[in-house]
Amino acid sequence: MGGTFLATNPYKGTRDFYPEDMRLRNWFFSKMRDVVEQYGYEEYGGPILESFDLYAAKSGQELVNEQIYHFEDKGNRRLAIRPEMTPTVARMVASRINELAFPLRWYSIANLMRYERPQKGRLREHWQLNVDVFGEEGIHADFEILSLIVDLMQAFGADGGMYNLRISNRRFFNDVMREVLKAAPEQIHVISKAVDKRSKISEEEYRNWLADSGISPEQVAQLDKVFASSFEELCACLPADSRGVAELQGLFSLLEETGFNSFCEFDFSVLRGFDYYTGTVFEVFDTSPENRRSLFGGGRYDDLIGLFSKQAVSGIGFGFGDVTFQDFLQIHNLIPADLAATGEVMIATFEDTPYREYARLSSELRSAGIANNIYLDVSAKMKKQLTYAERKGFPVVVFLGRQEIEDGAVVIKHMARREQETVSRGEYLEKLRGWLKS
Amino acid sequence: MGGTFLATNPYKGTRDFYPEDMRLRNWFFSKMRDVVEQYGYEEYGGPILESFDLYAAKSGQELVNEQIYHFEDKGNRRLAIRPEMTPTVARMVASRINELAFPLRWYSIANLMRYERPQKGRLREHWQLNVDVFGEEGIHADFEILSLIVDLMQAFGADGGMYNLRISNRRFFNDVMREVLKAAPEQIHVISKAVDKRSKISEEEYRNWLADSGISPEQVAQLDKVFASSFEELCACLPADSRGVAELQGLFSLLEETGFNSFCEFDFSVLRGFDYYTGTVFEVFDTSPENRRSLFGGGRYDDLIGLFSKQAVSGIGFGFGDVTFQDFLQIHNLIPADLAATGEVMIATFEDTPYREYARLSSELRSAGIANNIYLDVSAKMKKQLTYAERKGFPVVVFLGRQEIEDGAVVIKHMARREQETVSRGEYLEKLRGWLKS
Repeated sequence: MGGTFLATNPYKGTRDFYPEDMRLRNWFFSKMRDVVEQYGYEEYGGPILESFDLYAAKSGQELVNEQIYHFEDKGNRRLAIRPEMTPTVARMVASRINELAFPLRWYSIANLMRYERPQKGRLREHWQLNVDVFGEEGIHADFEILSLIVDLMQAFGADGGMYNLRISNRRFFNDVMREVLKAAPEQIHVISKAVDKRSKISEEEYRNWLADSGISPEQVAQLDKVFASSFEELCACLPADSRGVAELQGLFSLLEETGFNSFCEFDFSVLRGFDYYTGTVFEVFDTSPENRRSLFGGGRYDDLIGLFSKQAVSGIGFGFGDVTFQDFLQIHNLIPADLAATGEVMIATFEDTPYREYARLSSELRSAGIANNIYLDVSAKMKKQLTYAERKGFPVVVFLGRQEIEDGAVVIKHMARREQETVSRGEYLEKLRGWLKS
Repeated sequence: MGGTFLATNPYKGTRDFYPEDMRLRNWFFSKMRDVVEQYGYEEYGGPILESFDLYAAKSGQELVNEQIYHFEDKGNRRLAIRPEMTPTVARMVASRINELAFPLRWYSIANLMRYERPQKGRLREHWQLNVDVFGEEGIHADFEILSLIVDLMQAFGADGGMYNLRISNRRFFNDVMREVLKAAPEQIHVISKAVDKRSKISEEEYRNWLADSGISPEQVAQLDKVFASSFEELCACLPADSRGVAELQGLFSLLEETGFNSFCEFDFSVLRGFDYYTGTVFEVFDTSPENRRSLFGGGRYDDLIGLFSKQAVSGIGFGFGDVTFQDFLQIHNLIPADLAATGEVMIATFEDTPYREYARLSSELRSAGIANNIYLDVSAKMKKQLTYAERKGFPVVVFLGRQEIEDGAVVIKHMARREQETVSRGEYLEKLRGWLKS
């Protein structure tokens, strides 16, 4: 190799999780798990690779053309590393459509890959909580998903001042485009794309996008007026049987009756990028001036399994990524300082003591439910052993030498208090438990 | 689309985890997690994609040439989907070699991909527990890893009659090859590959492999003799300062003194496929006649980070895959019948009752730590709702109609006992808890 070494950094846009990073990730996904399981959601999982066709047909074009990692296997199958979970879960639901008891309340915690330029809040690999209700069309499911989101935020100590939940409806959007702008279906599609990206591009780019896509100046003017209108004003432009109006009104009155409305607001510009959304759409925004951005979002898709089957399954759900959320938690100071390390006790070792005695002591502690490490290198000086215990953050060190074995005792040391005691083998476990609790 | 639908099966050799499959996976990885955390191991994680170079240099040639999924990203980086965790963790250790407090006791639970012909116990994607000690050369670490494996098996109810732990040592193997067969280093490499694969190929293929690789008939005859020899006989052929002999003897006497030897045996044919093993190697075998095969294994590698740095770090560890282990658990009947579903209570709904009352009841139950589902479609007949509750396995259903709201009560139904009671809103939680416990 002649002195050339490989780089030790992870692949661009991906992360290594050292134990302290992993503790953070585990802390926050286990909190999320608790909330969704209290709502009775069941966990599922799928493969990291899927057939490329799953994404080619349905996800937004940007995702397909630019952001998917895809390649051929040796059997000439075109594969993709999943960039999102919805196509996977749609496939799974379609596969057992006749056996599953609907509605399903499912969640997953999965890693996803997208080829992006890494930047704040956006990496190539991220982990995502996905939560969905499948097989239920009514707005009670939409309401449940929204209230679950508020509970999720609350579980992390996030109050209504830190974020808001902006809600709209694709049917409502389409109705407004059709009735007010007299837009044709292809035009609606173009407008939705431009509106969705508006916050990320300049005003000029936005207007050029519309003009270049055959949206007339009159329509653009109408669109500006639409954005200046209230929900009630927009409703007044639509026919009495507009399903979009009925859904939004029903949803907001339930949110009001249950007090969740203080976290929620109507926002006509919320669309979500994916083409498959058909009804309610929503997005959670960080309200802090340092991080004013979308944290995550989701919506309702009424033709979830259309790629796989003639049968129709409606679903609503969201994907909640760890990268943006971690930024949110940091900015709002919601990460506890002491996500404790695994080990509770370190067993110091002496060279002249039979090693089996340490193995036995360690096993005794494990049986008592106390996680522990033996200091493996028995020839190391005690100073070195204690330095290690300190660096690793073990609250307690136990010493067992030939004298202690003879006396049927151990010496236990409370690291923080620098206190040390000889205790009999019959009593040390109780003493230790007391120290570890306090 | 003209009636053509996409297939709903997952990519060949990968699995969908429906909630019941996921419960099984979660059950068994959380058991493993408990055991390793009692030993004070800390969890880490890494990216699903790595630079292809990490595998090209060190893993066995078969793995590199045939089994790795690799491709180029748009920036012309050659990437691989990780087929194993060791290169990732080696990179991570090398990257912080000067900051980490050694020894490290690390574990991870990760999915890995290999391009294999799917068959019993072998899939393209599997999940693996990886457990390692880094930065400790002595056999105390080897002993700890082996005893941890026995505890891991014990946690699942696997006793010594169901499996055995076969142990050898690469240094010992090399010493025997050099001293007894007078084999040159390249010959030792060839012989180790043939011996490693011996159980998977015919006797003829094995002998041809050796002959075709320049192993002389005399050497092959010696090799046969070696395999017919006991550990003591082999030791007698080696110089007194053989490190392989010292390590194996030290390890086995510790295993004897602690009673672990009843699960362990010396087996000269254990080598492990990867080129990076240098010391102790081991393999866990299922002893059942139906599944007599290797479940998993591991060993010591003394030049873990050689690809990345001049510094030396020794490690020992193993990777424990879910596919083979699930077969093992099934064959030995070690999977509990009732891995319970998430939900405990279903709230039945009536169309004439304000929906906010259900939202409130659900929230009340969640606050009391009782996971629950609201039946979302309020227009569904009660028979349909109860059928759903039964299919989903909810032990209890709660009814709340207008009468109950007026009376400040709920009706609770014990599904298995077909027992139903009206209880006041002040007392139903306690009653429910009693039912859910029993």
